Amino acid sequence: MAGNSFGTLFRITTWGESHGPGVGVVIDGCPAGLRLSVADIQGELNRRRPGQSAITSPRQEKDRVEILSGIFEGKTTGTPLSLMVRNTDQESSDYDALLTHYRPSHADFTYDAKYGFRDHRGSGRASARETIARVAAGAIAKKLLGKVEILAYVKQIHHLIGKIDPAKVSLKSIEATPVRCPDPVAAQKMIRHIQEIQAHGDSVGGIIECVMRNVPAGLGSPVFDKLEARLAHAMLSLPATKGFEIGSGFGSVLMTGSTHNDPLIKKGGKIITLTNHAGGTVGGISNGMNIIFRVAFKPTATIFKKQKTILKTGKPTSLQMSGRHDPCVVPRAVPIVEAMAALVLADEHLIQKAVRV
Amino acid sequence: MAGNSFGTLFRITTWGESHGPGVGVVIDGCPAGLRLSVADIQGELNRRRPGQSAITSPRQEKDRVEILSGIFEGKTTGTPLSLMVRNTDQESSDYDALLTHYRPSHADFTYDAKYGFRDHRGSGRASARETIARVAAGAIAKKLLGKVEILAYVKQIHHLIGKIDPAKVSLKSIEATPVRCPDPVAAQKMIRHIQEIQAHGDSVGGIIECVMRNVPAGLGSPVFDKLEARLAHAMLSLPATKGFEIGSGFGSVLMTGSTHNDPLIKKGGKIITLTNHAGGTVGGISNGMNIIFRVAFKPTATIFKKQKTILKTGKPTSLQMSGRHDPCVVPRAVPIVEAMAALVLADEHLIQKAVRV
Amino acid sequence: MAGNSFGTLFRITTWGESHGPGVGVVIDGCPAGLRLSVADIQGELNRRRPGQSAITSPRQEKDRVEILSGIFEGKTTGTPLSLMVRNTDQESSDYDALLTHYRPSHADFTYDAKYGFRDHRGSGRASARETIARVAAGAIAKKLLGKVEILAYVKQIHHLIGKIDPAKVSLKSIEATPVRCPDPVAAQKMIRHIQEIQAHGDSVGGIIECVMRNVPAGLGSPVFDKLEARLAHAMLSLPATKGFEIGSGFGSVLMTGSTHNDPLIKKGGKIITLTNHAGGTVGGISNGMNIIFRVAFKPTATIFKKQKTILKTGKPTSLQMSGRHDPCVVPRAVPIVEAMAALVLADEHLIQKAVRV
Amino acid sequence: MAGNSFGTLFRITTWGESHGPGVGVVIDGCPAGLRLSVADIQGELNRRRPGQSAITSPRQEKDRVEILSGIFEGKTTGTPLSLMVRNTDQESSDYDALLTHYRPSHADFTYDAKYGFRDHRGSGRASARETIARVAAGAIAKKLLGKVEILAYVKQIHHLIGKIDPAKVSLKSIEATPVRCPDPVAAQKMIRHIQEIQAHGDSVGGIIECVMRNVPAGLGSPVFDKLEARLAHAMLSLPATKGFEIGSGFGSVLMTGSTHNDPLIKKGGKIITLTNHAGGTVGGISNGMNIIFRVAFKPTATIFKKQKTILKTGKPTSLQMSGRHDPCVVPRAVPIVEAMAALVLADEHLIQKAVRV
Repeated sequence: MAGNSFGTLFRITTWGESHGPGVGVVIDGCPAGLRLSVADIQGELNRRRPGQSAITSPRQEKDRVEILSGIFEGKTTGTPLSLMVRNTDQESSDYDALLTHYRPSHADFTYDAKYGFRDHRGSGRASARETIARVAAGAIAKKLLGKVEILAYVKQIHHLIGKIDPAKVSLKSIEATPVRCPDPVAAQKMIRHIQEIQAHGDSVGGIIECVMRNVPAGLGSPVFDKLEARLAHAMLSLPATKGFEIGSGFGSVLMTGSTHNDPLIKKGGKIITLTNHAGGTVGGISNGMNIIFRVAFKPTATIFKKQKTILKTGKPTSLQMSGRHDPCVVPRAVPIVEAMAALVLADEHLIQKAVRV
Repeated sequence: MAGNSFGTLFRITTWGESHGPGVGVVIDGCPAGLRLSVADIQGELNRRRPGQSAITSPRQEKDRVEILSGIFEGKTTGTPLSLMVRNTDQESSDYDALLTHYRPSHADFTYDAKYGFRDHRGSGRASARETIARVAAGAIAKKLLGKVEILAYVKQIHHLIGKIDPAKVSLKSIEATPVRCPDPVAAQKMIRHIQEIQAHGDSVGGIIECVMRNVPAGLGSPVFDKLEARLAHAMLSLPATKGFEIGSGFGSVLMTGSTHNDPLIKKGGKIITLTNHAGGTVGGISNGMNIIFRVAFKPTATIFKKQKTILKTGKPTSLQMSGRHDPCVVPRAVPIVEAMAALVLADEHLIQKAVRV
Repeated sequence: MAGNSFGTLFRITTWGESHGPGVGVVIDGCPAGLRLSVADIQGELNRRRPGQSAITSPRQEKDRVEILSGIFEGKTTGTPLSLMVRNTDQESSDYDALLTHYRPSHADFTYDAKYGFRDHRGSGRASARETIARVAAGAIAKKLLGKVEILAYVKQIHHLIGKIDPAKVSLKSIEATPVRCPDPVAAQKMIRHIQEIQAHGDSVGGIIECVMRNVPAGLGSPVFDKLEARLAHAMLSLPATKGFEIGSGFGSVLMTGSTHNDPLIKKGGKIITLTNHAGGTVGGISNGMNIIFRVAFKPTATIFKKQKTILKTGKPTSLQMSGRHDPCVVPRAVPIVEAMAALVLADEHLIQKAVRV
Repeated sequence: MAGNSFGTLFRITTWGESHGPGVGVVIDGCPAGLRLSVADIQGELNRRRPGQSAITSPRQEKDRVEILSGIFEGKTTGTPLSLMVRNTDQESSDYDALLTHYRPSHADFTYDAKYGFRDHRGSGRASARETIARVAAGAIAKKLLGKVEILAYVKQIHHLIGKIDPAKVSLKSIEATPVRCPDPVAAQKMIRHIQEIQAHGDSVGGIIECVMRNVPAGLGSPVFDKLEARLAHAMLSLPATKGFEIGSGFGSVLMTGSTHNDPLIKKGGKIITLTNHAGGTVGGISNGMNIIFRVAFKPTATIFKKQKTILKTGKPTSLQMSGRHDPCVVPRAVPIVEAMAALVLADEHLIQKAVRV
């Protein structure tokens, strides 16, 4: 109810603040018998952690995950998996001003409006460190999904757009550059652009595209929990997101039904569509085609230019942020988008087991 | 789990198919003591029903709602409200071909993939008649929300875009034309365009914008159930939707942090922002500004041009649809978008009551 | 949240009051492909309805069930099943006194304490007619469970105790008398005793025992949702219940570990226990033995003796109830106990499908 | 779904095994602004931990709780509270036999039946150490409940019954002896009896009674989540429980309606009942009287007499348990019963906030 859980059968509950002892997640409902090691999880966390390149926050967190329960002799037991990452490199003094100031476009004011007060250090629960828990859980969801491939990548940074074929993109091409855009030419431009923006103390956003391949037809459900509805929920639950679209998305508005409809054929014993404007789901249920969606991330709210704002009291003031922040969160959001997508699919994969007599 | 419920404290469960006895909804968790009459609900259903204008399906359904429980002497009792609308004007023979054919971009194949078979008459559960239940429940949510104003309207049809100020738009201006675009000049163009498209047996989509005014600060929650995440879930659960964006949305990508951040000031004793790129939520929690979001609707899949498709067996065939269908569902989706938005807010309104000691 | 739903994957939501239009239930999560007819449900409702014998309420309700959704050509489609029973034989004037009076041991005062007011006619939502919805849903759960046999019966009325072997009891022996005690000698005594109690305007309670045979090992879960915990929840949610015990129950307290432990052996390829003090579950999970539990029902609160009580204002008064009420609800509760047990097992049966990789 | 969560608005999720790194709990939905310290929780854990007296297991666990999130400057923030207790004194070699043996009346066989295999060390998730998490969460629930008093105590051990007045019992009288029976004469007999049973390598069970005082009228709900149903669920989810009864319980069966009904009067501005056969709830909702219930605990399954049993293969064998186990778990279950009762009430306390307009 308080919104720290996600999923139904494969259900995660996350906890933790930026400047407390750590962050973690409990996964309830992971089936018994799944081979799982710390390395499976650590690999994904390493893709998310700060300090990994010149265009990310220099905060140095190793983000070492500890598995506290639910594993026996290398396999999940069917009981809850509890994972924890200790916080280590905290500089709370960076945040002293936040005790009294409301930062523009940060959750300082809204947390106070909701709860009456807040843990201001490192944005508390609103810190992006909360997404560690999602990535850790998502790594397990990915393992459960077996041959389903989930690949997210940077499609656009500010006005710079990559040319990428979702059907062919590979993890290697994504991880080839710190900006995680698999179009190498666009990637270099994006990196340079982010560095320029950073030099001005400003920030930019971008668009992440995600493709899920080898998804069986039949996942999702017809009404409120349409697969695209759950994916949209998952993606808009990420910090700094402003939009979600699947398949033809907002562009579908400029088409007509006769050009937008995806013709069906049977090929190699499998029913497929010749085009994929749907983006892999019809009527809320996967149709076996690649699931393709995009997520819009706004420019990071934390910038290093002086900004006018107010104190908690309402008194006008100005604020000059310092500290260690990404000028563009989009590249580091790539594994987080994959994790959330995996959590949705893993849950639907389990739900589907009980759908027929 | 099977996806026919929505909400936590204000929780609805819908049921019914297009060509069965009727459709309905059970609302569990509506607080006791709310004044409620059939007229409150019927008014919203009349906005949704077919046959209301030249640009909607000629199917004539009165969509008369019956309240079966939960009311005593004109007030809700705190026990479940059960609402039902009987189906009356069914022409199942329109759908005989669907027993054997898979329509392009309809849920025929995916229902079979999920359940092993399906009720093909009128698309069964995938029929837009299912949204009657949402609108009925949403009417009650609106009543519960009191002075919160929720207004959706058509912003765009195909390439035609209306000029509308969300801060000033009124129900009267929305309902002034059957296309529900409150820009009267654009509205006339849209109506003519829909009629032309219809004359060609084709279909178009569009964008609905929704504004929620007088929403108190503090609704929503910080992590998975961010207010925008729940709204995105709600909207992508509607038939034919392909995208959702809040505030600056996908356009935010073309801005930088220094221009996107919304400066805070205190005015008239209330903390507000000078711009509203956020769209009324920060960190997943409402900030007291207008909540503004947009939803993309693809062109209706049902068109009257001959289309190539396949039989259930996979054999290629062609299909010429007849029957009574909207060439553009967007105008009729306006009250449905409002209903879903109201359901999210009503739920968060109740949840907020238990957030502080 | 408001407590009108039960179950997770096989989830029911009930609605309706005694003197409104009717009562009903929506079942979400019944798998697709289950053969189901009105007769399957009506048979169970007939066992529950009033007016069936000399020792039950003379209220004449046919309790005809209507299936409003979720069935196509005799099989469930995987979409929600909506069932309704119209109320027909209402005598609201019987209840006029309740507008002002608080009946002893009825929910009049507590509903007012919770909701601020109440629908007093026929006890509103607190009426036992609400259990119609449970029995209807339970009938479907029973069908889903296939060869699992669920048999409840009257074990005790007041001080009269039947001798019954749970391993051998049959539906026929239970239904042989209106008191539903399969020990024919005890049954006759019970009937006479109930009639005597009724002649004095008084009421009695009793104990229902329920046996579930052919339950596979492995249902239930280790911690909060132990199978016995869910059964206890289900049973104590029935009107007039005061206690639940499984296997040796409260009697276990008088034993020691060495006599209470159930020795394991393997017989005919199956692991069984030589005794069944456990009552069919160990550590919250079924062990394949018969599940046996008992439920205590207090004497009905509605009696026809003059009672001292108070008005809503708190003013002392006396109350002489009239109307049509059972002197002993226990025999009619037998199918309701079976229904609730079936709902728990059907849900666990579905949950178990997703427990292993 | 997998049964490791409890509650709706005040919702806990527990994790951990006996011989893993530790056990813990995440509490989601605790309101913001509650004063809370480690000492509040540690005090309750100390009442539960082993090694506290001559009649409990000599296993020496300090059970030091760590608060990992959700607190800022001594108050809850409204975000999840994560609590952990590290395991320290593990002797896994005690359990080597369990790799191959199925202990009578333990969950060895049923875990295998459910999950396909199990963590056999210290009974894994089936260990009573799991209840640490419940007690820790319950301590917070108690704080939230403020002036509601929740007191459990040993009413009966084997055939020895204490004389206790629930209206007057005090924490001090309960904690006066290690057996936690507030009748001092009975307590001494119980302690001697447990020691005798222990000397024979056998075990006994007992009955815990719990009284909740100062509970406001109006908590609970009318249908599936009756307050007594949720309490029954909570109690039967505890290890070794076989029965639950509220108020008159199974004894109600021997009364008639005219003697069982609780007469209402108004006294000191408050509506009360002259007797309390109901046990504090009517129609599933608290009536403001003391809530009184009892829980039956069977004799501990772990005994030190040689027992016949089988290997996993089904082959007959005999088993002589050693290790550190309580001959009677009932005294240590007292704080656990209180914790579960507090969790139910805290949840209903929050739910009640959203029940009226």
